[in-house]
Amino acid sequence: MTRQQLIDQIQKKQSYLIVGLDTDITKIPKHLLTEADPVFAFNKAIIDATKDLCVGYKINTAFYEALGVKGWQAMEKTVHYIGDEHFKIADAKRGDIGNTSDQYAKAFFEALPFDSVTVAPYMGEDSVKPFLQYEGKWAIVLGLTSNKGARDFELKQTDDGLLYEKVLQTVSTWGTPENLMFVVGATQADSFINIREITPQHFYLVPGVGAQGGSLKEISEKAMNSDCGILVNASRAIIFASDGEDFAEKAREVAKEYQQEMKTYLG
Amino acid sequence: MTRQQLIDQIQKKQSYLIVGLDTDITKIPKHLLTEADPVFAFNKAIIDATKDLCVGYKINTAFYEALGVKGWQAMEKTVHYIGDEHFKIADAKRGDIGNTSDQYAKAFFEALPFDSVTVAPYMGEDSVKPFLQYEGKWAIVLGLTSNKGARDFELKQTDDGLLYEKVLQTVSTWGTPENLMFVVGATQADSFINIREITPQHFYLVPGVGAQGGSLKEISEKAMNSDCGILVNASRAIIFASDGEDFAEKAREVAKEYQQEMKTYLG
Repeated sequence: MTRQQLIDQIQKKQSYLIVGLDTDITKIPKHLLTEADPVFAFNKAIIDATKDLCVGYKINTAFYEALGVKGWQAMEKTVHYIGDEHFKIADAKRGDIGNTSDQYAKAFFEALPFDSVTVAPYMGEDSVKPFLQYEGKWAIVLGLTSNKGARDFELKQTDDGLLYEKVLQTVSTWGTPENLMFVVGATQADSFINIREITPQHFYLVPGVGAQGGSLKEISEKAMNSDCGILVNASRAIIFASDGEDFAEKAREVAKEYQQEMKTYLG
Repeated sequence: MTRQQLIDQIQKKQSYLIVGLDTDITKIPKHLLTEADPVFAFNKAIIDATKDLCVGYKINTAFYEALGVKGWQAMEKTVHYIGDEHFKIADAKRGDIGNTSDQYAKAFFEALPFDSVTVAPYMGEDSVKPFLQYEGKWAIVLGLTSNKGARDFELKQTDDGLLYEKVLQTVSTWGTPENLMFVVGATQADSFINIREITPQHFYLVPGVGAQGGSLKEISEKAMNSDCGILVNASRAIIFASDGEDFAEKAREVAKEYQQEMKTYLG
């Protein structure tokens, strides 16, 4: 999906919501456990219930890998089921030496039809570049994350600003706003104005709304640009809104609340 | 595998060689492509031919993920086939917020019987700690990597030394030499004396010998401690020593050369 196609979807749906499919098999409704593939059955119901309210889905690969081969199968079925109208994110935090990142790019962009992969920047340019070589595909590189551990290194002073600032500056020279986004956590709202100055045109993937405590209002005010420029992810707050038979319906209600609020910020 | 068991294996085999199973399906001998699972058939032959010469195997997950579900199956079969006498490394470069790293730890330590996972440190403490909660299992955290991109961030000056030095100092307080190792690339030989001062007791996983140009002699002289303290990985140099029917035999010859040289440094 190109940047313009993504912007068109945001305008059409009046939403910049990404639904995070962190499908923890121990948290899905019990009645689904008798299904042949409970994780896919859950995802399918969530997708059907939310697809008009969100512009994309983020698959957190860890929850699938934890189930072994069956998990990978559920991921494959899910990403195919989502289809081409939505921006599909493999939240995989990959990154390795060039010849190995090549293989990860193949895994998510060729073997699977994802539009984007989240990438850790620690190993530098040759670990990120392979994800930037595909037309209409994206690397979403970690900038400033939503977790407590962001303080350990990301927020450390270097000889040229904080580490995450250096990451934004440096990584943004490796790609363009057409193939590169950054992860910026919703819990880092105070830093958004600074971040937007460093990377005015890039989209940010913003996790941490909902369960992690970030405010949709605050990040929307501080981080949006004239093309919207943010994709806000909510996972647990939506998909586990209910653990009963009404889980999809309740997920839709929460997604709808987000979308309605987003509409006001887009307007 | 505990630290003492690993040291015992090193002593017994007079080797600190790790064979890297970066099994690229486009590079394996053509006659294997008619097998039901060519990647596993290749790995099995390599393992059979090298198991008395090395103390462990490193599975580079990217090459398996690039094949989708079939790749994950080949990885699962391979790690089970290796068995308990060898140190099994999932070279996966994972790391995410706490609840997600929990799932990655489950993926590699529960769903699969790996002894260790390589972990990227960028996201800090809660992204690494879940890998340190398993008895006899290890996190192998990226310190200073072997690739060109190491210069982009790892070698940058912070207010308290170079970034990789800060990573070694900080991460070493999160675990012990019994559950934590660091990745230090063989191409970084000049830095090994400094690295050994910061982390005197930890084992290092040292990739980059062979195809990437690192010298076994130099890193052995500079990086070993009284418990050996290094695991040296060679991947392509061993597994792709020949692309003919004699691939396993040739792999053994190269592995044997490494082991014979290692024996002199251990002695």
